[in-house]
Amino acid sequence: MVKVGIINVTGYAGVELARFLSRHPDAEIVSVTGRSAAGQKVSDVFPHLAGEVADMTITPEVTESVDVVFSALPQVESAKVCVPFVRNGTKVIDISADFRLHDPAVYQQWYKAEHPAPDLLETSVYGLTELDREGIAGADVVANPGCYPTGAILGLAPVVKAGLVKDQIIVDAKSGVSGAGRGLSLGTHFSEVNENVYAYGIDGHRHLPEITQELARQRDGFDPKVIFLPHLIPMTRGILDSIYCDFVDGAFSGPEQAGKAIKELYRDFYKGERFVKVVNASPQTKQTWGNNDCLIYPTVDKRTGRLMVFCALDNLVKGAAGQAIQNMNLMFGLPEAEGLDFIAIYP
Amino acid sequence: MVKVGIINVTGYAGVELARFLSRHPDAEIVSVTGRSAAGQKVSDVFPHLAGEVADMTITPEVTESVDVVFSALPQVESAKVCVPFVRNGTKVIDISADFRLHDPAVYQQWYKAEHPAPDLLETSVYGLTELDREGIAGADVVANPGCYPTGAILGLAPVVKAGLVKDQIIVDAKSGVSGAGRGLSLGTHFSEVNENVYAYGIDGHRHLPEITQELARQRDGFDPKVIFLPHLIPMTRGILDSIYCDFVDGAFSGPEQAGKAIKELYRDFYKGERFVKVVNASPQTKQTWGNNDCLIYPTVDKRTGRLMVFCALDNLVKGAAGQAIQNMNLMFGLPEAEGLDFIAIYP
Amino acid sequence: MVKVGIINVTGYAGVELARFLSRHPDAEIVSVTGRSAAGQKVSDVFPHLAGEVADMTITPEVTESVDVVFSALPQVESAKVCVPFVRNGTKVIDISADFRLHDPAVYQQWYKAEHPAPDLLETSVYGLTELDREGIAGADVVANPGCYPTGAILGLAPVVKAGLVKDQIIVDAKSGVSGAGRGLSLGTHFSEVNENVYAYGIDGHRHLPEITQELARQRDGFDPKVIFLPHLIPMTRGILDSIYCDFVDGAFSGPEQAGKAIKELYRDFYKGERFVKVVNASPQTKQTWGNNDCLIYPTVDKRTGRLMVFCALDNLVKGAAGQAIQNMNLMFGLPEAEGLDFIAIYP
Amino acid sequence: MVKVGIINVTGYAGVELARFLSRHPDAEIVSVTGRSAAGQKVSDVFPHLAGEVADMTITPEVTESVDVVFSALPQVESAKVCVPFVRNGTKVIDISADFRLHDPAVYQQWYKAEHPAPDLLETSVYGLTELDREGIAGADVVANPGCYPTGAILGLAPVVKAGLVKDQIIVDAKSGVSGAGRGLSLGTHFSEVNENVYAYGIDGHRHLPEITQELARQRDGFDPKVIFLPHLIPMTRGILDSIYCDFVDGAFSGPEQAGKAIKELYRDFYKGERFVKVVNASPQTKQTWGNNDCLIYPTVDKRTGRLMVFCALDNLVKGAAGQAIQNMNLMFGLPEAEGLDFIAIYP
Repeated sequence: MVKVGIINVTGYAGVELARFLSRHPDAEIVSVTGRSAAGQKVSDVFPHLAGEVADMTITPEVTESVDVVFSALPQVESAKVCVPFVRNGTKVIDISADFRLHDPAVYQQWYKAEHPAPDLLETSVYGLTELDREGIAGADVVANPGCYPTGAILGLAPVVKAGLVKDQIIVDAKSGVSGAGRGLSLGTHFSEVNENVYAYGIDGHRHLPEITQELARQRDGFDPKVIFLPHLIPMTRGILDSIYCDFVDGAFSGPEQAGKAIKELYRDFYKGERFVKVVNASPQTKQTWGNNDCLIYPTVDKRTGRLMVFCALDNLVKGAAGQAIQNMNLMFGLPEAEGLDFIAIYP
Repeated sequence: MVKVGIINVTGYAGVELARFLSRHPDAEIVSVTGRSAAGQKVSDVFPHLAGEVADMTITPEVTESVDVVFSALPQVESAKVCVPFVRNGTKVIDISADFRLHDPAVYQQWYKAEHPAPDLLETSVYGLTELDREGIAGADVVANPGCYPTGAILGLAPVVKAGLVKDQIIVDAKSGVSGAGRGLSLGTHFSEVNENVYAYGIDGHRHLPEITQELARQRDGFDPKVIFLPHLIPMTRGILDSIYCDFVDGAFSGPEQAGKAIKELYRDFYKGERFVKVVNASPQTKQTWGNNDCLIYPTVDKRTGRLMVFCALDNLVKGAAGQAIQNMNLMFGLPEAEGLDFIAIYP
Repeated sequence: MVKVGIINVTGYAGVELARFLSRHPDAEIVSVTGRSAAGQKVSDVFPHLAGEVADMTITPEVTESVDVVFSALPQVESAKVCVPFVRNGTKVIDISADFRLHDPAVYQQWYKAEHPAPDLLETSVYGLTELDREGIAGADVVANPGCYPTGAILGLAPVVKAGLVKDQIIVDAKSGVSGAGRGLSLGTHFSEVNENVYAYGIDGHRHLPEITQELARQRDGFDPKVIFLPHLIPMTRGILDSIYCDFVDGAFSGPEQAGKAIKELYRDFYKGERFVKVVNASPQTKQTWGNNDCLIYPTVDKRTGRLMVFCALDNLVKGAAGQAIQNMNLMFGLPEAEGLDFIAIYP
Repeated sequence: MVKVGIINVTGYAGVELARFLSRHPDAEIVSVTGRSAAGQKVSDVFPHLAGEVADMTITPEVTESVDVVFSALPQVESAKVCVPFVRNGTKVIDISADFRLHDPAVYQQWYKAEHPAPDLLETSVYGLTELDREGIAGADVVANPGCYPTGAILGLAPVVKAGLVKDQIIVDAKSGVSGAGRGLSLGTHFSEVNENVYAYGIDGHRHLPEITQELARQRDGFDPKVIFLPHLIPMTRGILDSIYCDFVDGAFSGPEQAGKAIKELYRDFYKGERFVKVVNASPQTKQTWGNNDCLIYPTVDKRTGRLMVFCALDNLVKGAAGQAIQNMNLMFGLPEAEGLDFIAIYP
């Protein structure tokens, strides 16, 4: 049994980790932390949780010996808490953004804080499972990807890797409100969000640099120029990334041929994947509600010949806790889908 | 392995059965039917379904030999399809209302149709699992309870059985829209239901007679006079039954003592239950989202001394498919919670 | 032109006052206050507001000479700010609860604060327009009713006044989230409220004593015993009060006769009312979205003979800002419906 | 008084016309039609409507002499009903798509029907009020724009007219469900749409050709290549068009200068407009809820130098009924904003 600590179990990613891990056949939650809720039982904060995890007492720090910690703390804070674990030889899976950007200067620019352990930025592995299984399996620190980047990168990797698209890329994303976490703000106040939709982060959202960094990694010399624009949607869960880009000149003989070739390329690329599914029609976020799937639909606009890719996933599962557990399974030599074999809840 | 047929897999209860049964360790879906979708694969209709069930072809009728059929057809139609199975010795779990009312005259009054097999109304067993395990285990036809009655009856059974309440009872219920099924109507049209709440079925909802029938069964001579009033809520899943009634005279010395005694009574009554949980605070439907729990909170109004009971559940799980599987487990000697061990999805 | 000050324009009731008053033909907003937003323009906080009000600067206190102030401050705070205006001879319409309860001891019990001006509790007038036009017209301080009590009292007044119902009354209320205001809390956080319904204030909601007080005023010697239980609904606006009570013995010969007589009684009682409408079918909150209507549907349960009344209104209009303006019109001798002649927005 | 007929008052655009026109100081509804509801009073179908319009009887055809008819019928059907009015000299404002495309071949391609009066396609005027006041004022048939195109064209007109952008344009649109009308479909069934987001019309949405046609009209020789992609959002009202395009080479010295110049260009272009407002921050659909505003926010991505424009409006008002009345005002020499002076309802 892998002994697990969950840091900040009281956030939405934290409680989602608890949901999955409490049913994981080869993992055992042995310590859960929280700040304001320290001293309470997990079931005091989340009455819906049942079983052993419900009876655990939330502590300010990890109190037990663990094989791996998941951190669901906010950025900046998370790095501070994670670093000692890494130094001690405990595996770390950080759901915050603190180990995603390999360049400390870029980190500082976007997160307005000096990184406490720049050396770890070099060795941490970006945990987009399907794109770097080997790296993740051997990592000490896995930087679990952001919810938006997970879809954006998975949706673009096949064509970027194949050198098929130009560097100008648009990612128009739509997200449910849970992506903003359990912390209070006017922007997540029910009456403000309900019956409303708008773009935010127009001057630059923090998920942009990791999209750019990871796309660049897919192909030598590729230097993507990404517009990433998220929109807030009046729903709790779900992310849809709508991606628009252009093929390099001469890549295909025309839209129709491009459409066929692209579908085949994506199917091949994700062949055999358990959680990344290339689908035949516009994917709906509801089709991934509560499970670890990422649905991808690539298509070519028949009038303009441009590539459009749509990626749907649950921001708290494949976009956070689910992918984190997928990564844990890899790191500990367990079957990758263990503890994650759930069907989406519909309707 | 129990071989299962799902009749009308394309409704919301049907697809929910498929979700649970496709992960059930001791059951195997061998046949799924549908009317308009016959000839299609399950995954054509429900792209989110994965695994074996996704690849099954929907047929007009059950084509394989089965140990049990679940019918998720609408009332009246369901009885017609179920009767031949019963006559053939196949176990039937009917999610419609067709075998719930034991009196054919009452059935005809509420459903405006003659029952095709009145003899089966006598032998069918009302499948509120926690209240009649023995009956269910031995039944040929289980009439799976309605979503509203499940909460109402579970919430009242302890005090009715103990002879503690008068016969005048009010059940003010609130339900998500999925309870109305997948069939189209103006009442389930998004723009009509969203940002709206109202009572419906004011002249008499069809779930009333089964509430009355089953409450009467809890205690000899108890003849309940129930007002049952459902309200439609702009959410997909969830039912909350808010119950109000009066204690018989002299039952308790005062509201405070009544409150304590009642909480104890309910805890004792549902002691050891896996899916019925007596909780310490006002239950939220979200705390049962997607799982088989029914949360019950009994309390006594300190000003008027009246009893108030709140019951929350997921109308498609404990209120339909989940309880149906719980009943199947009993009927085939399997552990009652098998295939149903899920934590509610939050948020 | 009536010169108006709005205290705390930045809350939901405050901005709703601004919406209506900025189009009122005989009123003029001359001062708007706010605490955290002081110094900003109204349009900085509410970009959707247009016209003169948008260009006004929010000040910490009312800076201009005014004929009337509306206070949309929270309780306790509101009284402190309103009292000096009353002492100065300025008319006050308080949307908070601070002048609703005439008994200082009851006020202290429910609001956990000593009232700063108990003498004003004696002279303040409860502003349920349709039930006390004369009192309101002559009042110095109008205590604008709570959103829940508005429906509950209007729905019960006809039968209480006529001496037709017993004292045991149940008000099961359902409210949109905007009723909780613009202040942040976990209970109004989108992901917590969406896809959820539950009862709150089970041990006693602050709107209970005003319901009791005002019902008692409708008939000498009537001493109501009210259970008032609100439920939070995932929508922004709207309140539905579902009311259950019993007729006094011998009031009617049977349910059918009672039903007819009651409908007639309500139609007579509210004959000619512009904003209170007795309707023929279960009212929907959407039918009052954004306007000042209160729709009332009284009916008698044909099985139990009990009275059921359903009242729908917009909590921010008839339940707050709209009724406040209706009261202002009365106080200044203007046509009662002036500035309020809007059709509900559907869908 | 302008005498008005509303054809198909029972759809969402129809009832919205009734809401506005019943309060219009210089117009009078004299006839309302409906198909399935013929013979009923308007208030039978829409109990929330008050005043004279509520008491009108819905007829199968326009029965009174009228100065103008608004048609809120679906496409193809609408043309058939409108043509006789035009031939008779009655002004027609068609909210359907039947007179928007000037080329009969394009009409046939997209609407799969031969147009019944191709000559009228030549003379009909596209009713995007702010862009063709003169044409609309003199038109016999006004083709009221689609909800999506209204935002897309208003958001692009300033830069297209100025020759500042290349022909490759992306419009990623998000719409509430009421845009799909009051007709039933699985795609507008509450439980399918709620907690869900997805793109539709990926192979070509019918609003595309009118966007292309009208953008081309803004500048001689401009031949736009538009990707228009709508997404369905779980809300009732509101459209957000997110527009992405590239400046022609050398248009600006860099992103910063472009940003400033663009904001100035848009402010100048829409200077003095009552309903089109160039705003300083990302517009929210809620800021236009129920009123006739279109909010536009143009900005330049500082990393890639590309132009992004966000347009928010209420699909049933500026996107349908409101703009139709704005056009009627122009056609009859009335003040353009008459009957439309409403503040958005917030929250």
